[in-house]
Amino acid sequence: MDVKASLLMVGDELLIGQVTDTNASWIAAELWRLGIPVLKKITVSDTLDDIKYGLEASLESADLVIMTGGLGPTKDDITKQALADFFDDELIFHEKTFERIQGYFQDLGRPWNELHRLQCFLPTRAQLLTNELGTAPGMLFREKGRVVVSLPGVPYEMTGIFKRELLPIIRQMVPEKHRHSLTIRTIGIGESDLAEKLETLPSGWDQDVSVAYLPAIGQVRLRLSAKADREAEAIKRVDRAAEMVEKVLAPWIFGRDDESLEMLVGKLLRERRLTVGTAESCTAGLLAHTIATVPGASDYFTGSVVAYSNDIKHRILAVPAEVLERYGAVSEQTVKAMVAGAIDALQVDMAVAISGIAGPGGGTPDKPVGTIWLACGNKDRVTTKLLKLNKDRQRNIEYTVTVGLNMIRKFLMGL
Amino acid sequence: MDVKASLLMVGDELLIGQVTDTNASWIAAELWRLGIPVLKKITVSDTLDDIKYGLEASLESADLVIMTGGLGPTKDDITKQALADFFDDELIFHEKTFERIQGYFQDLGRPWNELHRLQCFLPTRAQLLTNELGTAPGMLFREKGRVVVSLPGVPYEMTGIFKRELLPIIRQMVPEKHRHSLTIRTIGIGESDLAEKLETLPSGWDQDVSVAYLPAIGQVRLRLSAKADREAEAIKRVDRAAEMVEKVLAPWIFGRDDESLEMLVGKLLRERRLTVGTAESCTAGLLAHTIATVPGASDYFTGSVVAYSNDIKHRILAVPAEVLERYGAVSEQTVKAMVAGAIDALQVDMAVAISGIAGPGGGTPDKPVGTIWLACGNKDRVTTKLLKLNKDRQRNIEYTVTVGLNMIRKFLMGL
Repeated sequence: MDVKASLLMVGDELLIGQVTDTNASWIAAELWRLGIPVLKKITVSDTLDDIKYGLEASLESADLVIMTGGLGPTKDDITKQALADFFDDELIFHEKTFERIQGYFQDLGRPWNELHRLQCFLPTRAQLLTNELGTAPGMLFREKGRVVVSLPGVPYEMTGIFKRELLPIIRQMVPEKHRHSLTIRTIGIGESDLAEKLETLPSGWDQDVSVAYLPAIGQVRLRLSAKADREAEAIKRVDRAAEMVEKVLAPWIFGRDDESLEMLVGKLLRERRLTVGTAESCTAGLLAHTIATVPGASDYFTGSVVAYSNDIKHRILAVPAEVLERYGAVSEQTVKAMVAGAIDALQVDMAVAISGIAGPGGGTPDKPVGTIWLACGNKDRVTTKLLKLNKDRQRNIEYTVTVGLNMIRKFLMGL
Repeated sequence: MDVKASLLMVGDELLIGQVTDTNASWIAAELWRLGIPVLKKITVSDTLDDIKYGLEASLESADLVIMTGGLGPTKDDITKQALADFFDDELIFHEKTFERIQGYFQDLGRPWNELHRLQCFLPTRAQLLTNELGTAPGMLFREKGRVVVSLPGVPYEMTGIFKRELLPIIRQMVPEKHRHSLTIRTIGIGESDLAEKLETLPSGWDQDVSVAYLPAIGQVRLRLSAKADREAEAIKRVDRAAEMVEKVLAPWIFGRDDESLEMLVGKLLRERRLTVGTAESCTAGLLAHTIATVPGASDYFTGSVVAYSNDIKHRILAVPAEVLERYGAVSEQTVKAMVAGAIDALQVDMAVAISGIAGPGGGTPDKPVGTIWLACGNKDRVTTKLLKLNKDRQRNIEYTVTVGLNMIRKFLMGL
């Protein structure tokens, strides 16, 4: 069976912009891996009419509809009622779910309340999907060969139920995968320049492999995908295309799929048995945190000094007072001194230093907001870089962290 | 005119889960502020048929359709063509746009390429919306009293065009706002407990003010909203309701609307003329970065020590070797010593220290993954807290940062 899916997200908060929907992309990625295309995604408000509209529109072309949201204990959540109406069903107290919720709160050492008891009134026709991380179970309805699933909107509850309860059911719907995609991650080159470079690909390029460009802060991801009768065939085609792309774009590529820049940096440091530290002013620890998001980072990351004030730059990182006075905190001389100071203070093999004006205040005619100096190196060799950014505070900080990671990569790879 | 909107997001990347859609929530929030309800949001793939379906479904009930995505320079982007087809229009080379793009690249000091020139073929009927931050202009079509707007998918380009070009046009469509909402932000109390406490609200509660609960990591936001014939009336009703809620939930409330916990912490520190520093192990600088996301944080934040290794805990933060040996790095004794060490090393009035096992590795039977100790205080008084989390690495880290901020808040407020 060639299953096609549609997503239905329920919640006023999504339509007034109070919450960014991360569930849809997570579910879509899971379904993509199973070879199930998501034809569309519809977001509706918490009203019976809109949920009914959403169900009808979703079922028009899809065999599998996955809904999230509107299952909470409070009275603005009415997805359960809407589903019971839609499937001509009724809500009945479900003793086992109530026992599970009582046990859940016992484990937490907190009492349940009346609202939790009301969550146990559930549609009789629904197959319940146990929620180990919260109170509202998921529900699955089957009708005329089509499947409608309702999951809680809280992301970790949703993903928990999806992985443990729903995935095995969906797998049975699609015995074979026919689709494969692979993402190549680049840094330091724009979307149009990438596209132009790819026009020079050798003649052996497989026209059935499609390429999409996904830009992010300082990075562009290239998604290659192919469909084939057999999974192995799709994988082979995509892999061959990926190798061709990787040859043309080598200097800008740092990873595939979920391999982040910080993972590559970690791998390079571990291979070379080196340790790294950071000395951060305007990024205030975000580079350190990003390096440490990789599990096992303690093998190569020992710590950092966040030197927001000049006093700390001088006292802990030993930046000479005359350097700070003569060149200013945001200068090539200062970040170079910060690298040396961090290597000493943190007892590491190499360090990255950052000092800049993230904004919105603090700019001068000489050094406007967005002026950011970085340095990266060891005791023998230090590279520096000056950024002139024009984005908002948070984006300036995030972009700078990406550049800092890329400097470590290039330093270690001798690029 | 009572304008109703619908959002149409275009992009394969959204349906295979490679990108999380942040544009929709941003646009929805802007429209909400203007009193324009978003009836639904539809996400479709980059194909002519699907974009056409999306336009038809969006225009069914909406007067204003805002689209994003599919305007990039590469060939997978076909929104422009789909709009020309839908509005029975054609694409013509637009000289002025080309001149603007040439100027844009001149400023960047980079050459334009052929793909940028192709971006200048635009529908003749479209009113163009200048894009100062990128190459693809926005487009606005009017037909039978309804408006369809197409914006680039790159978030900062989209928001730039929206604010500068589109907002004035939309404002003219809705001379008066009739809707108001206000968000009350709480921490340290669950959704059901909040709801139960709100049941005891005094009898004067305005039934026309609706309440919605929006849980996030460690926090729950309460959204109060009301509709009225006049804006002033809606504001008055919501404000009155908010005051009642704030009385009942005082100990858990830290702000309204966009006021984050780090903003409140900054305000409290500034009022008391105190400085703060952090000493972080497993969170590795994320608490420092979060404190420093607030513009002007340098008034009260001077720096941090990320002490991932025991060596740095001992050498820079002066945690006695016997404390580390006897109680371990993840212990109440260690985080207390880290607070004292950070106050000395960073020369601050108060500090927060964090040491824990974020996972997935590093757990022991005594101290399983998710065991995290925090301490917060000054030279005279230190409070501590033990967390036993069971989430994934990144969530454990983010939750811990929220708890750390809340400890600063409670310490400063004497709670």
